[in-house]
Amino acid sequence: MYSENTIIALSTPEGIGAIGVIRISGKKSFSLLSKVFKPLKKEKVKENVAQVGWIKEKERLIDKVVVTFFKNPNSYTGEDLVEISCHGSKYVINEIINLFIKYGVIPAGPGEFTLRSFLNGKLDLSQAEAVADLISSESKISHEVAINQIRGGFSKKINKLKNDLVDFASLLTLELDFSGEDVEFADRKKFTTLLIKLESELKKIQNSYKYGSVFKEGIPVAIMGKPNSGKSSLLNSLMNEEKSIVSEIQGTTRDIIEDYLIIEGTKFRLIDTAGLRKTKDEIEAIGVDKALKVANKSKIVLFLYDSTDNDINGIKEQLSSLKSDSAEIIVFQNKIDLYQGDDSVKTMIKQNFPKLQDPLPLCTFKSESVEFLKKELLNKVNLSINQSDTIITNIRHYNAVNNALKEIIKVKKDMQENIPSDLISVDLNSAIKHIGEITGDIDSEDILKNIFSNFCIGK
Amino acid sequence: MYSENTIIALSTPEGIGAIGVIRISGKKSFSLLSKVFKPLKKEKVKENVAQVGWIKEKERLIDKVVVTFFKNPNSYTGEDLVEISCHGSKYVINEIINLFIKYGVIPAGPGEFTLRSFLNGKLDLSQAEAVADLISSESKISHEVAINQIRGGFSKKINKLKNDLVDFASLLTLELDFSGEDVEFADRKKFTTLLIKLESELKKIQNSYKYGSVFKEGIPVAIMGKPNSGKSSLLNSLMNEEKSIVSEIQGTTRDIIEDYLIIEGTKFRLIDTAGLRKTKDEIEAIGVDKALKVANKSKIVLFLYDSTDNDINGIKEQLSSLKSDSAEIIVFQNKIDLYQGDDSVKTMIKQNFPKLQDPLPLCTFKSESVEFLKKELLNKVNLSINQSDTIITNIRHYNAVNNALKEIIKVKKDMQENIPSDLISVDLNSAIKHIGEITGDIDSEDILKNIFSNFCIGK
Repeated sequence: MYSENTIIALSTPEGIGAIGVIRISGKKSFSLLSKVFKPLKKEKVKENVAQVGWIKEKERLIDKVVVTFFKNPNSYTGEDLVEISCHGSKYVINEIINLFIKYGVIPAGPGEFTLRSFLNGKLDLSQAEAVADLISSESKISHEVAINQIRGGFSKKINKLKNDLVDFASLLTLELDFSGEDVEFADRKKFTTLLIKLESELKKIQNSYKYGSVFKEGIPVAIMGKPNSGKSSLLNSLMNEEKSIVSEIQGTTRDIIEDYLIIEGTKFRLIDTAGLRKTKDEIEAIGVDKALKVANKSKIVLFLYDSTDNDINGIKEQLSSLKSDSAEIIVFQNKIDLYQGDDSVKTMIKQNFPKLQDPLPLCTFKSESVEFLKKELLNKVNLSINQSDTIITNIRHYNAVNNALKEIIKVKKDMQENIPSDLISVDLNSAIKHIGEITGDIDSEDILKNIFSNFCIGK
Repeated sequence: MYSENTIIALSTPEGIGAIGVIRISGKKSFSLLSKVFKPLKKEKVKENVAQVGWIKEKERLIDKVVVTFFKNPNSYTGEDLVEISCHGSKYVINEIINLFIKYGVIPAGPGEFTLRSFLNGKLDLSQAEAVADLISSESKISHEVAINQIRGGFSKKINKLKNDLVDFASLLTLELDFSGEDVEFADRKKFTTLLIKLESELKKIQNSYKYGSVFKEGIPVAIMGKPNSGKSSLLNSLMNEEKSIVSEIQGTTRDIIEDYLIIEGTKFRLIDTAGLRKTKDEIEAIGVDKALKVANKSKIVLFLYDSTDNDINGIKEQLSSLKSDSAEIIVFQNKIDLYQGDDSVKTMIKQNFPKLQDPLPLCTFKSESVEFLKKELLNKVNLSINQSDTIITNIRHYNAVNNALKEIIKVKKDMQENIPSDLISVDLNSAIKHIGEITGDIDSEDILKNIFSNFCIGK
């Protein structure tokens, strides 16, 4: 659908710079270039060789440029591709682009170079999507995830899962062909084991999205606890020690202040709920409600309590209000320097919140203690990520994994209930389809368009 | 002074884009690249050949890039130069630049690549300056001037002038060696002819600066005349017909509105003084004063009068107030459709302002008439520019030409007054020095630094 047109775009950011790079991809790119490019040295334009020369419109010199020609299929798009490195002047760039447009070249849509790369089999879809992720990456982890995805690590994993299922589906189909003879080509036991393994792997991948999806914006961390439990001191300690704070922004509610903190390349968005409870009256009414909302939006809640606080019911009530499923809660026994051996809060937590880990000691004015907290924060993220060597950051992938997982669970149930092979086959193929969507088994042009519409022009 | 360091910079504009180009220039560029670049295909990095591969820090992959290596002296800087075309992510770009900085590469200063190009004799100084002009060019003419300067057309002209003087200076020096013998190697007549020619050429170049200097910002044109002479109608006609109006900005005084108009690639800044005179009382007091100031800032004044206006003294007074030397005045007899044969204004102008051309007819609601006015506007610029095939846009060049011109005039006077050769020689060498400054005969590092400080980083 695309191969007939030759496209052009500025591939470097808009604005004045030393260099601008214009890319032209398609069948006519080379013949049109030959019309307007005059190399300084009298030699033919060679594949992959950078050549200095002039872009001319008839006798008018437009710019002195460096041109590199990449022959199909050894180019980014898999088509004949020309890169013109010109002076970074808006006027010059427009003149060059308009010159090619006069010759029938079409301005490229967003991500159209990468789309062509995908359509020509140079990249699979998840690799193509990672290109956009890489470009917008801001932290070490999001960069690492995108690089791994571009290299094909993620695709390899997905394809492995898919191939296992395809192999089994083929055997099931074979069974159907011999259905009269009651043969079982597909080893049901082996298949059940495979399904269990698949379910577990998909769940890990699914779980990785919890953090993967927020790498770019920063993993939201809520600091919660009763008034005077030391929330603000903790925030101050984190902020004063770290020079890596990017900015301070006002949250959606005026009471909530957000700060960014980068710990070993991972970006966190700290949400201080210190301002939530100003008067006692507000606690029950608005306060708890807001706190809960904040907790629900967070991936991690740092829950603090004061070692000297005897109000066990108050702490219990607060913890109860954090019924969030999506956030992981780490409880800290703050002001540990004042601890006098009273473990009643610990006991209460053990009894009432069996899923929570034991409270960890904290002293916000000791840097070792704050460092320890930061390590815990990182651990929570890394634990969740390391469960799977594959991290999902893209909602399309997440949805595909979710859908595939549903089908796998259905197939597992089918197996347990001895549903006939032909019906199992339907669910199995549906699972295969969903997994395949990740790397590009997509039959709708609209979905493709939608994916690439998020790209910048020129990529 | 520069050759010892290897420098690095992002050469494409800041911001997120498909591609970012990082340039590294200097002795170590190639050996350092070899440390961190791993080509996809197992072949040696070749000169001028674009190669795909990974930038790695030890085992960590930073980005998949295209690298081109330009060996000295066949590079932009004349040094070993590497271009890394990476993904246009701020994070990736910083990681790559920091990687090289860790190895001792130094961030490039503004224009340092072009400065090295100049120091290595790849470009002369006026060519180097034209690179910055090209990058900031916005209109056809400023682009053309910069391209011509980059090509060396301007330098050739300047060198020709300089060489003529140098030849003569040598002969004068020879005369001094034989001073006892009263020999005249330098033909005085020929030399006087040369001086006259030089003076005329330098004056033309000097004159070209009047427009050259304002190409970028738009040539300021003031529309003046008594109230009801049709100034606003003219402005509206120019604006309504032309779709090329870029923006409307408030002038330095609130009363003056500026509009941009591009006629055949030349940018004009129209200054409407219509708001200057609101009441009769203001005319004498503030009005005339402001109008004069506007005229003085303009390069061209379009002076309008009404064909039916009998107030000859008023028109005379207005014209008298425009004592500007820097602006060219074009007088238009407006509302020519109402003209009834009364030529008293024309006669008054002829008698009192002999330097002005005859008034030209104008009818602001007829498009042919407005087109005619636009042609006149263009002619004024082109006439001034075409007197010289060389256009100066740079104040440094203008000052050098002015200084050279002063010396030439002095030498001419010296000749007429039969001043001894050794004294003439001093002035002559001073003229040579000033002309040489344009293309780079500069002994001060500070001047060089100052010139390149206006460049963007990465160029």
